[in-house]
Amino acid sequence: MPYVNVKVAGKLTKEQKQKIVEGITKVLQDVANKPPEAIYIVIDEVERENWAKGGKLLSDKD
Amino acid sequence: MPYVNVKVAGKLTKEQKQKIVEGITKVLQDVANKPPEAIYIVIDEVERENWAKGGKLLSDKD
Amino acid sequence: MPYVNVKVAGKLTKEQKQKIVEGITKVLQDVANKPPEAIYIVIDEVERENWAKGGKLLSDKD
Amino acid sequence: MPYVNVKVAGKLTKEQKQKIVEGITKVLQDVANKPPEAIYIVIDEVERENWAKGGKLLSDKD
Amino acid sequence: MPYVNVKVAGKLTKEQKQKIVEGITKVLQDVANKPPEAIYIVIDEVERENWAKGGKLLSDKD
Amino acid sequence: MPYVNVKVAGKLTKEQKQKIVEGITKVLQDVANKPPEAIYIVIDEVERENWAKGGKLLSDKD
Repeated sequence: MPYVNVKVAGKLTKEQKQKIVEGITKVLQDVANKPPEAIYIVIDEVERENWAKGGKLLSDKD
Repeated sequence: MPYVNVKVAGKLTKEQKQKIVEGITKVLQDVANKPPEAIYIVIDEVERENWAKGGKLLSDKD
Repeated sequence: MPYVNVKVAGKLTKEQKQKIVEGITKVLQDVANKPPEAIYIVIDEVERENWAKGGKLLSDKD
Repeated sequence: MPYVNVKVAGKLTKEQKQKIVEGITKVLQDVANKPPEAIYIVIDEVERENWAKGGKLLSDKD
Repeated sequence: MPYVNVKVAGKLTKEQKQKIVEGITKVLQDVANKPPEAIYIVIDEVERENWAKGGKLLSDKD
Repeated sequence: MPYVNVKVAGKLTKEQKQKIVEGITKVLQDVANKPPEAIYIVIDEVERENWAKGGKLLSDKD
């Protein structure tokens, strides 16, 4: 029954998303014995202007 | 003082959103005795390409 | 495929939790036509010392 | 190693975001002694049609 | 700069947590080219009385 | 109508929590012109065994 939320700064391609959800689902299935159909994964692609590290927006570090 | 986050895959109409927030607010008011004005609800409409189940993106299941 | 997170300050009884999840599930089923089996709800009971409103911890308002 | 998520209804200017992340980072650094580089902040600007208070969407209260 | 939140119903052993964070970190590093040191993962072990599926608490399905 | 979630690894004292919520509330009030009473802050104190960085649990780095 796991629920996973992945937040990344910037965009991912569809192929990257496919590989991420396949990979994470497999980890949870193998390690925690969870049935894949019960695993939800939600990906948030956050704009770099809305993510900060060290007190600075990522878009200001480019 | 409840805070509720509802994530759905795909889009909702404005009327659906109105009914969802009315319904959830009423449930929390009736069951947990919370004053409606203190109840915040945030709805996230997640693109089907960003939601996975069973290791597959929902957009790949269409 | 909805995922709902309900955060409340303080504790709920088991009966309150049962009624909350029944109520919210019914709202999403009726309004957004989601199959109940696909609806996950996670309840977080947050200590009043860890929830603030108006710049004050709730535990300091008692 | 803090992670902070700020959700606001409506939009913020870039300058507001810069000041918010600077201010919150400073608070966590001063009070909890966290190194700024370890502090992540993610800002979500939620549409007023997707945020409810008192059982009403904010966009319906305008 | 990814941030990942994994919610599971029930408990995990320390060894399971170690394998889950190793596995997810590797997926994000390999697929999205993220430096491991920038990847935060937070695991929430949710009590089965606080997780519902199909309108029923998991603890009531045991 | 902001909602803020602060996650830290390990514990905070009550005095630290008081200063954090005062500080963050003031930042949002000053910068984004939000009324303090509308600002909710929830603090999650995450066990170091449940937070990972660089693919390792923080509790394994001690």
